[in-house]
Amino acid sequence: MGSEAKCSKPECDKFVAVNELAKRRGFFWSSFEIYGGSGGFVTYGPLGTRLKQNIENKLRELFVKKIGIYEMESSVIAPGKVFEASGHVDHFKEPMVECQNCKGRFRADHLLEEKGISSAEAEKMTLAEIKEELERHGIVCPDCGGPFGEPQRFLTMFETTIGPYSGAVGYGRPEAAQNIFVEFDRLYTAARERLPFGVIQIGHALRNEISPRQGLIRLREFTIADLEFFFDPEEPCCRFLGEVENEVLPILLCDTRLKECEDTTDVTVREALDRKIIQNEWQAFFMAQAKRLLVELGVPAEKQRFIEKLTWEKAHYSTQSFDQEVLVDRWGWVEVSGHAYRTDFDLASHMKASGADMTVYKEYPNPVEKEELVVKPIMAKLGPIYKGEAAKVAALLAKVPAQEVTDAMEKQGSIMVENYQVFSEQVDISRQKTTVRGTRFIPHVVEPSFGCDRLFYVALEYAYGIKEDRVVMGFPRSIAPVQVGVYPLMGKDGLDTKACQIQNMLANEGFMAEFDETGSIGRRYARADEAGVQLGITVDYDTLKEDTVTIRDRDSWQQVRTAIKDLPALLHDYFYGKKAFKELGVLIKSQ
Amino acid sequence: MGSEAKCSKPECDKFVAVNELAKRRGFFWSSFEIYGGSGGFVTYGPLGTRLKQNIENKLRELFVKKIGIYEMESSVIAPGKVFEASGHVDHFKEPMVECQNCKGRFRADHLLEEKGISSAEAEKMTLAEIKEELERHGIVCPDCGGPFGEPQRFLTMFETTIGPYSGAVGYGRPEAAQNIFVEFDRLYTAARERLPFGVIQIGHALRNEISPRQGLIRLREFTIADLEFFFDPEEPCCRFLGEVENEVLPILLCDTRLKECEDTTDVTVREALDRKIIQNEWQAFFMAQAKRLLVELGVPAEKQRFIEKLTWEKAHYSTQSFDQEVLVDRWGWVEVSGHAYRTDFDLASHMKASGADMTVYKEYPNPVEKEELVVKPIMAKLGPIYKGEAAKVAALLAKVPAQEVTDAMEKQGSIMVENYQVFSEQVDISRQKTTVRGTRFIPHVVEPSFGCDRLFYVALEYAYGIKEDRVVMGFPRSIAPVQVGVYPLMGKDGLDTKACQIQNMLANEGFMAEFDETGSIGRRYARADEAGVQLGITVDYDTLKEDTVTIRDRDSWQQVRTAIKDLPALLHDYFYGKKAFKELGVLIKSQ
Repeated sequence: MGSEAKCSKPECDKFVAVNELAKRRGFFWSSFEIYGGSGGFVTYGPLGTRLKQNIENKLRELFVKKIGIYEMESSVIAPGKVFEASGHVDHFKEPMVECQNCKGRFRADHLLEEKGISSAEAEKMTLAEIKEELERHGIVCPDCGGPFGEPQRFLTMFETTIGPYSGAVGYGRPEAAQNIFVEFDRLYTAARERLPFGVIQIGHALRNEISPRQGLIRLREFTIADLEFFFDPEEPCCRFLGEVENEVLPILLCDTRLKECEDTTDVTVREALDRKIIQNEWQAFFMAQAKRLLVELGVPAEKQRFIEKLTWEKAHYSTQSFDQEVLVDRWGWVEVSGHAYRTDFDLASHMKASGADMTVYKEYPNPVEKEELVVKPIMAKLGPIYKGEAAKVAALLAKVPAQEVTDAMEKQGSIMVENYQVFSEQVDISRQKTTVRGTRFIPHVVEPSFGCDRLFYVALEYAYGIKEDRVVMGFPRSIAPVQVGVYPLMGKDGLDTKACQIQNMLANEGFMAEFDETGSIGRRYARADEAGVQLGITVDYDTLKEDTVTIRDRDSWQQVRTAIKDLPALLHDYFYGKKAFKELGVLIKSQ
Repeated sequence: MGSEAKCSKPECDKFVAVNELAKRRGFFWSSFEIYGGSGGFVTYGPLGTRLKQNIENKLRELFVKKIGIYEMESSVIAPGKVFEASGHVDHFKEPMVECQNCKGRFRADHLLEEKGISSAEAEKMTLAEIKEELERHGIVCPDCGGPFGEPQRFLTMFETTIGPYSGAVGYGRPEAAQNIFVEFDRLYTAARERLPFGVIQIGHALRNEISPRQGLIRLREFTIADLEFFFDPEEPCCRFLGEVENEVLPILLCDTRLKECEDTTDVTVREALDRKIIQNEWQAFFMAQAKRLLVELGVPAEKQRFIEKLTWEKAHYSTQSFDQEVLVDRWGWVEVSGHAYRTDFDLASHMKASGADMTVYKEYPNPVEKEELVVKPIMAKLGPIYKGEAAKVAALLAKVPAQEVTDAMEKQGSIMVENYQVFSEQVDISRQKTTVRGTRFIPHVVEPSFGCDRLFYVALEYAYGIKEDRVVMGFPRSIAPVQVGVYPLMGKDGLDTKACQIQNMLANEGFMAEFDETGSIGRRYARADEAGVQLGITVDYDTLKEDTVTIRDRDSWQQVRTAIKDLPALLHDYFYGKKAFKELGVLIKSQ
């Protein structure tokens, strides 16, 4: 345990400790190490994959199962047109500088940040301003000290070619939202053409970062959960608001940020809406849900905040945006989710680019009577004058708004359409009543978007603890990568067979249960604590006589004794219900 | 229901019916329709995503939970080196021809298949043979009738650039296996350095098909489940064999195929091994598991077969391969999984290309005594003769195998090393005993590989049924996309509130439950049957009095009455246990 013990010293932070543990125990590591590595790609090992799935399944539970959000799955690769329409081809770029000496390429804004210029400031700079700032701070190549060339903007999407034709450009999606927008029509049909409804997509996304860094924080390939919630802007009320209205949201407001202050304004969801701090009820609802999600992943409320984005920080599509941030040991506040009110930007963009109708129809509660002016040419009078051109004149007239024709006739008694003069006696002008039963409009969108790798990282860092000089990964029980370890006290005398049977039984009941028979029982407990195994079931000689086992709790190290036959029901209530550890049996040992 | 009724007519097959239903009800559809579509990409809608996840979770249950296979997750994009080493850059190509007139590009082998040449035959042809066959059959461009140019081989991997340097080639992975091989060392550590062990990765993969077709069967982006099982070739026994040894595998053998016959040889797993039809126990075990999986997805045993691959059909890495095929209405036999004995090909290739040691150490049960010849130069005698070059001569001598030196000394009394002559009196030759405690070797690999989109498609086709002129999607209950529908008889009098409460309760218990209140109850049942909703819970006026509900079975249309408070336990036993529908309450109606 030497390497963990080290981590309590000041020079070694939790980032190092967590990454070392993650690599050693197979939570995650940098990919392609045998080929010298490739920055920004990670591999989740057995424990990590389970933890990551448990976190993703929490999102499904929270949104899909409990509030009826739909889930969809589409492709990582998409044709160029999708990201041209979405604005990504134009906007999804980062400022880059190249060293004229060693040809190394760097994110210009990151170089400026190292000189104390905030990312918010760097983000709004033009290329000329970036150049000026680089020169003013005398920033040179960090690798060789060489001078930089002109800053340029680098498109951070992965580009490829779809099919055998070189002209068919495709991109790796930098987020999962566009799939939802381009498939809106079919999704709306699946939702039985009713608003509001939401669709979530959880999947891999790609950003061709110039210089990926910070472990799981800035990856080239990552997992994103984008939830697009479609609603009628005239009916923006959230029917679940009652469930969250007293939840307190700590928000760092734009006004406060502009004063270079970091104090949060702590408001309940209800207050945030009443005081118009948050514009939309659904957005407030999802922010409250996001806070609760993080608590369930093990991040206490006081280690979370929301930060309102400044105008120049917001994505090109967003009206109001908040980032949910979590405090981590090495990096300070790190974004784990974004909450954007995207209005109708995306659907309108795709509608314009594709020509497809992406509006929805809304019936009015009561039909509306409308009076319309109708201008009708009298062909019997036009014909004798314009002869073969009469139809053309009538068609030209039809293009002029009825009000304009009427006004001209009233004022001048005639109107010119191209070179033809039409007189008032050649047309019939009347007022007709029509009944309008509804209208078509483009739904508005509120988007909560979660970075799953970051959720994973903060869950790992907040689970990390030291107890009696040993690492104990204290995951909340609902995300523990292994629910139960099953251990025969000895690998003989039938104890191993019995333990195997119990492991089998639990696996068949749907539990994630692992069998481990090597090393002393103390060593196995220590190994399990480090992997975050929630409960340990030990099979001993009494088990063979009485059909009972010991259950050990990872966090308290307490042990209870219980009957094997009761295990499935007890564990079900413990993992999926509210049963406490001590209710699982008779307390036999309290360490 | 008009469009389904049509499908019982002979001109309309299940492929059409299933695809139409899939699009209408949101199981899946072709992506990017608003931009004119992009062949080979599909979107899974709400029902489809759930069904697909249920199928993928079945793989996890079967392999991860029950037999302890590890799961991992890595990136879709990988550096070029990975696929150079794996052989994909050289071999992952398809023959293509371009029309000299319209420039259309086509899979040459597919054009030949349309003229009755089997894919097995086409696969072994050289480009010259393909050209000859195209000419012999007078095959011209199917689009414009123009002549074809020279056939070429097209690399069917998506290519991109990683990071800001144009030289850093990356590919979209065409399968999920290589991630497992390149990360072998860390995975072996996570498996606590013990063989055998297996690792599965379920994720998106990309193949830049020249002409994708057949709906879900041949996609450019798809989901693959690759399981790599590592074992010591000297200990190839499968400890789970007892569980499957009597499972019958219908195998179409190479010998039979070469006689142009399609009769399968039906053998039990045990017989297949005894008769050496299948070389490896683990391979046989996974084939039996694959058969059972398909049965659980709704494909009866008699609609499945295994086909042994001919030498020229096998992938470049495989020793013995079988494809698991399922009979579908439109396409005949379609591959759903592949079973390859990959030996040590992959690890050896990556070891060679990367220089990393991918061997594992095995301790012998008993240490082996070995006698070794040792040749030692006597520097006191070499020194005076070779002076400053004596050390060089000694070093050169050390590179010659000891046996060779000994033989030369015995025959000629001296040996030449480069231009230096070394005499027998200048060396000491002795025999030394050493104890060898173990050896290093490269593990062998058996791989079952499942195409998840194809599993999805066959599950959909086999679930498709017509009952009283209506479509009923009769999914096995363990994969039904929605487990329970909850319906208030009327949307008033508190029935809707009560139904909502029940839906909430079930969602909180982890069930996939949906609330539906629109349309007549009959219409809702019909809609639910078409979506494959397993059970329908109806809330009526008696519910308010007695706290009981009606449960309706999708397949038999039978109904039982039961108490609301018993629902969680009953449904749990029904979906995760073995409880039959009739055991859920008192039968009240049998349609």
